[in-house]
Parts: sequence; structure tokens; C-alpha cells
Amino acid sequence: MSAISTKPPSGMRDFLPDSLARRRHVVSIVERVYESYGFVPIETPTIENLSTLLGKYGEEGDQLLYRVLKRRDSLTRALDSDEVTERDLAEQGLRYDLTVPLARVVAQHGRLPKFFKRYQIQPVWRADRPGKGRFREFYQCDVDVCGTKSLVAEAEVCGAVAEVLRELGFEDFTIHLNHRQLLRQIIAATGIDASKEETALVAIDKLDKIGEDGVLKELDGRGVAEPEARKLLEIIETDEGASSDDIAERLKTFVTSETGVAAIDELLELLELAKSTAADGHLTLSPALARGLGYYTGPIFEISVADLAGSLGGGGRYDDLVGMFGKQQIPAVGFSIGLERILLVMEERGMYPELVSGPEVMLCWMGVSESSVLGVARQLRSQGLRVEVYPQSAKLGKQLQYADSQGVGAPVAAIVGEDELQSGEVTLKHLESGDQERLPIDRAAEFVRGGR
Amino acid sequence: MSAISTKPPSGMRDFLPDSLARRRHVVSIVERVYESYGFVPIETPTIENLSTLLGKYGEEGDQLLYRVLKRRDSLTRALDSDEVTERDLAEQGLRYDLTVPLARVVAQHGRLPKFFKRYQIQPVWRADRPGKGRFREFYQCDVDVCGTKSLVAEAEVCGAVAEVLRELGFEDFTIHLNHRQLLRQIIAATGIDASKEETALVAIDKLDKIGEDGVLKELDGRGVAEPEARKLLEIIETDEGASSDDIAERLKTFVTSETGVAAIDELLELLELAKSTAADGHLTLSPALARGLGYYTGPIFEISVADLAGSLGGGGRYDDLVGMFGKQQIPAVGFSIGLERILLVMEERGMYPELVSGPEVMLCWMGVSESSVLGVARQLRSQGLRVEVYPQSAKLGKQLQYADSQGVGAPVAAIVGEDELQSGEVTLKHLESGDQERLPIDRAAEFVRGGR
Repeated sequence: MSAISTKPPSGMRDFLPDSLARRRHVVSIVERVYESYGFVPIETPTIENLSTLLGKYGEEGDQLLYRVLKRRDSLTRALDSDEVTERDLAEQGLRYDLTVPLARVVAQHGRLPKFFKRYQIQPVWRADRPGKGRFREFYQCDVDVCGTKSLVAEAEVCGAVAEVLRELGFEDFTIHLNHRQLLRQIIAATGIDASKEETALVAIDKLDKIGEDGVLKELDGRGVAEPEARKLLEIIETDEGASSDDIAERLKTFVTSETGVAAIDELLELLELAKSTAADGHLTLSPALARGLGYYTGPIFEISVADLAGSLGGGGRYDDLVGMFGKQQIPAVGFSIGLERILLVMEERGMYPELVSGPEVMLCWMGVSESSVLGVARQLRSQGLRVEVYPQSAKLGKQLQYADSQGVGAPVAAIVGEDELQSGEVTLKHLESGDQERLPIDRAAEFVRGGR
Repeated sequence: MSAISTKPPSGMRDFLPDSLARRRHVVSIVERVYESYGFVPIETPTIENLSTLLGKYGEEGDQLLYRVLKRRDSLTRALDSDEVTERDLAEQGLRYDLTVPLARVVAQHGRLPKFFKRYQIQPVWRADRPGKGRFREFYQCDVDVCGTKSLVAEAEVCGAVAEVLRELGFEDFTIHLNHRQLLRQIIAATGIDASKEETALVAIDKLDKIGEDGVLKELDGRGVAEPEARKLLEIIETDEGASSDDIAERLKTFVTSETGVAAIDELLELLELAKSTAADGHLTLSPALARGLGYYTGPIFEISVADLAGSLGGGGRYDDLVGMFGKQQIPAVGFSIGLERILLVMEERGMYPELVSGPEVMLCWMGVSESSVLGVARQLRSQGLRVEVYPQSAKLGKQLQYADSQGVGAPVAAIVGEDELQSGEVTLKHLESGDQERLPIDRAAEFVRGGR
């Protein structure tokens, strides 16, 4: 048979034990911190109806959705029509983020607590161009508070995320803060027509990536006149090192509408509240922050660190999303951490502690029956030890070499021969130091855990 | 806007906190036991190339695969052709089991340990008809040993799975054992033509579901003459309560080929080996066990309990699967537990321990600033407590009622008013007993964990 490619699809990855250990280390800290804030976990299906997904993420989002091909009769019917389009061929797609599924869940399950605080750590899929730290299957770690418009909810999600980063060892991160209502008022203040508001938001969102000239070009291409576009950039760009209070003052010279001023004041209030949380010292007002997703209605957030282009995560308030499912309107705010970005920075900075995984003991044997070896393994495991049995007969030297080899790395070999078996003992050998001792089987854990 | 359905797609589920707590409880035990056997975890992508998936699971499997619709240019090109078929519209699909991805990983990553022992706990997708305990997205918990033909590997995977079930509280399960080579020799012994071997295996696999008559009818429909079909049933059906040794003796009267006898002896040897593992007392020879999947080559296994139709899991040896990727041939054997079936039986039998989750403390407040409330929350959390903050101002009675409500269930309320704030204290109240005490904030954990 000719060789089939054994690589995973583009933008997707196999996680072997070492990298999985690092992922699990980070996830366990995220879970612990989120739970300490009173968030409870949910999980939602990988596949959602396209009616749930479409129209929530903006035009670009819709294009990046993975769609699931119809099957059997419904596929046949779709193919029977004259002019077959993408629309006809799929009615389900893969989860694109964790926020829209949460909104669906909240709309569906009437008996959730009023202030439903959930966390969710699951993969999402986007058919984006793969790049550094950018994959087509990647994990998000979300916290959201539903059911309240209180800024306490904003402060809590910012606090939770900041505490996660601090627990992981990050010290230098910044949580950028802006407000969708403020952005709208800024756009209005420039004289840009209301019909171009979405266009302007999308362009601002790319400022980091494409720079001022890029934004001007994009706005020009979409029919925004240069004076307005330049005005927009003037308002949203702030001096490096300016305090949030100074920025707020300056914004108030441009934005004078009631809504705009209220949004600025809300941000100032949130900044004050956040001083009582783990986000203290990490928050800054960033009028150029726009966030790509369409569903935000209030404060928006994004985390950055100096040595990574793009963000470690982001979020915001979305008071209309649950209502888009046609039922009750329920306000909500959330924050999402991108696991892959966190891992990338931790890897580059060498931030991982030593993570222990794999077998602690390799059980090596000679001159005894396989049954008796399995019996010894059972006794060792009953002491709580992680034990691998060398699975077939081989010379002892070969077995010991395997125990100590790359990717196995058992610290201790337990050796069983006829002598040991008769006396109910094992010979235990630390593979690094070479220290060895013959002990009753039930004292093996003592030797292994004692670190002798 | 008209209401969009907020249900998950058919055969898929939202997991709310209570059900997720039960899933995590089971998964944590599975992980612990698998690791105690020296297995290490991997994860593979949700999406695989169809070239990886197709032709591995038999005809029915291929039909049940979820396919991912091509996008953009490649979709346009596919739709341009005259006669568009399913084949043209997708080149990727969703993971259907965890064994084929493992085989791909083993073929891809040359530097894995020689006896790669991996476990993997991830969802898989099959577009099957949903039913009781049968979903379209469901989790499998697999252990596999690669790189050896030694029966020690079979004994170890059976032992690991048996130990998982025992740790979960199952006592009455049976691991059925058969052998693909034996089945082939049985089929040959009946006089059924070798070209109908696959047909016969598929029919046998359905015996549990469709009964003798169903199997006879299916075989008849596929061109197997009745005398041969009856002979097949005669050989594979065994007396209730017959010992494995008796069954083996009886099989040897029908099967006399060298391969057939060797297979029977291998099963007897495995039964003997397994006596030294946690599978002791749970294994039985079951000549009617066929297993649906195409890739097995040696011993096969399936677990059943009395009160569940279908199996809790299964597995077997598949020495040719890695080689199907056109590279080196690497023998392997594995066992897969179906998480959903386990959960279903545990639910029905009331086997779950009491699982604690959600916030331990609801922080209620009145007459103080939100900033100071967040500050108290931070101090409580720094003691390791899981703390939810009532997010907006409300009467104290309402806050306490919420703390104690369905789905929140915080055992303790911490109350902060002006008095408490000034003295650096909180009033702590056990919501069930009504006991309350005013204590310095840093002694809150003592009160909560002390269970007073």
C-alpha cells in the first residue's frame, strides 16, 4: 500500500505526553483559580447548528467557520438542485468560540442560577491561516458572569484572569480596557457616517497588525474620507505612558455626548473597582482597542505582553447575545484566555516548573514466569506507584537501558528474578545514582518516594 | 428576531455543572488507574484527513463518519464539476475512534518509546441513530500498548480496564474474550467460503441485538447457505455457565487447523496470565464475540454488565493497522472504555459518591462599597476558599436566599456590612444549620472547612 500522510491536518496538532503535561499544568491552574472565584464548569458539543453560529461573529467569522457536510438523503437532495451552493450543503458547523454556545445554553436552560457564573475550557475551530501561536484547533479558557449589569462582574472576570496569569508566573501583562459605546461615540465625533461604524471598528481592530497607513488605506477603500479617518486615529491613539485618568480627560475633549461621557465614566469606575482585585496595576485605558467580534455592547478587554504580537486573551460585555436566540434578554460579560498563546510565551520564557509524568518504576524481570511478574506489578501498583512492566523477555541490561531511555525515563527499576520471587522481594535500583537495595515488595514505595 | 432553536444538535449534549462533576469524577479515576499502569497521555486533533479515516472501520464505519465541507476555492472547484458526489466535497472528517489516530501518531513520530503505552480520553463522533446511552458525540477512554506481540500487553490492558471498573465500584462485570484468528478458523470449519468471512463476522457481531433468527436471515440474504450458517451458530454458541476450559475443549473438536488451535491456546494462556491482574475472576471465553471494527488481528475483548444491553467497552489486538500507513509494521493491542455507558449504569445504580463543587462561600454585602467587597473577596480567596460575590446591591435576605438556592448551593454565607468592614471581620453563617459567628477575615477558612 502506498504511504498515506501521517501528519495531522494543517493548523492542527498531536499532543505527545511532554507537551500534554505542560498543557495540563496550565489548565489545572486556570481551573483552580476560576473555581476560587465561584465559577462552575460546563461543556458544550463540538458540533452546533449553523443557525446558532452564523451572524454572531461578523462577516469574517462566518467565513472561517468549519461546516459539517450533510449526509445521506439530505445530501442527495441538496445535490439534486440546479445551483448547489455552500449554504445547501451544510446545516451544522464546529464550535467557533465558547461565548455563543454559552448564550445558547443560557437561553435553553431556564433553571440555571440567576447570576450564572460559568467557566469553560474546550477547543474551538477556525479555518484561519495558521501561523506562530495561531492554530485551526485551539483551546480557549472562558469565564463569564450572566444576569447582571453590575461592573462587579467586569471586575471579577478581569480579576480572575489576572490571577491566573500571576499564578502562572506572569508579572508584566497589561489588560487593555475600552468600551464599545465609547468607540461608537468616538466614530460619531469624527463625522464618519453611522452606516460605516462597523467598517471603522473592523479597521481599528487591525491597527496593531497593519499600522496607521494600513488603517487609512482600508478606510479609504471602504469609502471613509481621509480627514475623518485621520481624526479617528488622532482620537484613539494615545501617548505611551499616559495615565488612564489623563487619557479619559483627553477623550472627554472629543466626546461630549451623554452616552460617550457615561461610557468613559464607566471605564473609570471599573478601573477603580479593579484596584481591589488581582488585576490591580495591570489595567490601562486603551481607546484604540476594538476587538473583532460583533457581539460586544459595553466594556471590552484584551491582555497583552511585551514579547508577543497579538493578545493572550480578551473579552467584554455582551448584553444582547442571549436575546439573539429570541427569548429573554440576559446581560453578560466574559473574558477568554487563549491557551496556546499562554503556552507559547511560557515556553519561550522557560516558565514551566519541572513536571513529573510517566512511570516511576520499570519492572524488569528474568527467569520468572510472566504471571508472577504481573503479580508483582499488582503489588507495586497497590502502593500507589506508577509501574510499567517490561512486556517481553529480554536481557536484563536491555530492559534497564529501556527503562532509562528518552521518553520513558522511569527513575527506578524494580528487578525480579527467581531469588527475589522466592523471598517476596524486589531489587530496586535508582537509575541515575545506581544506588540499589533489595527490599520486601511492600516497601518499594518507601524506596521510590524516599528519593534514595 | 424569530426564535432560533437553542437545543444542541440531535445526539449531542450540553453538560451542566452537576453532570460535568460526575464525568470528571469518573475520568479522574480512569486517568489515575491508567497512569498507575505506566500509560502516558496523548491527544490528537478532532479533524483528521479522510485518507487517515476511510477504510479502517468497515463499510458501516465509513458511512457514519462526519465529513467536513471543503471551503472557498476548493469547494468552488468541486461544485464546478459535472457530477458532484460526497467524495468531491470533503477531504477531512471528525475523529471516529482513538485507535486509528494512535496508529497514525505511531507511524508519524519515529522517536516514541519502543513499547509506547498511551492512554487517551477524548470525544469521538459517529452519525449513528441516537438511543439510550448512545450519542453522536461521546467520550472514549483508551489504553494501548504498541511494539510487542507479548500477551503481557493483552493482560495489562485487561487488568487496567478491570481495575478502573473496580475502583468505580463495579463488581459484576464480565470481560468476554475471543480471537479473530479463531473466528476465521471457525468460519472456515463450517464450510462458509473465505470470500464470505467478513460477512459472517459482521453477522455474528449482531447476534446479541438481532438473535439467532436475525443472524440466519442476514447470512441467507448475503448468500451463505443455511446448513453452514446453522453450523456457525452451533459452534459459537456456548452453554451458560460453561467454564472457559470446557469451552476451549469443545472448540477444539470443531477447529483442528494449526492456526485455530494456536489461537485457542493463546486465549487459554491469556486467561491464565490475567489471573494475576485485576481482571481475575472477570474473564470468560466467548466464541460468539466478534467486534464490529475491521482492524483486529488477534485476541478481542468486550465488557458487559447484566443490566445494560451492549457493552461498556472493548478492544483487541491490531498488528497491521500502523502498517496501513505504509511505513513500519508495529504490533499493538488496546482496550477502550465508553464513558457514556459507564456513567449511565452508575447513574441508574446510584453509584456516585457525593461530589462537592461550586462556591463554598457566597459573599453578601450591604452598606459598603463594591471596592471593599471585592477586597474582602480577595482575602477570602487567598485562604484557598471558593468564593462567589453577590454581584449587585440587594436586600440581605434576598442575597442569602440566592446563596442557598438550587444550583448555587453555597454552604456558607459571608456577610460584610459597615461594622464588619471597620473591624476587619466577616459574619459567617452556615446556611443549613443557621449557626453564625463573626470572625477576623483571615480565619474564615477555619470556619468553612471546620464544618461548624
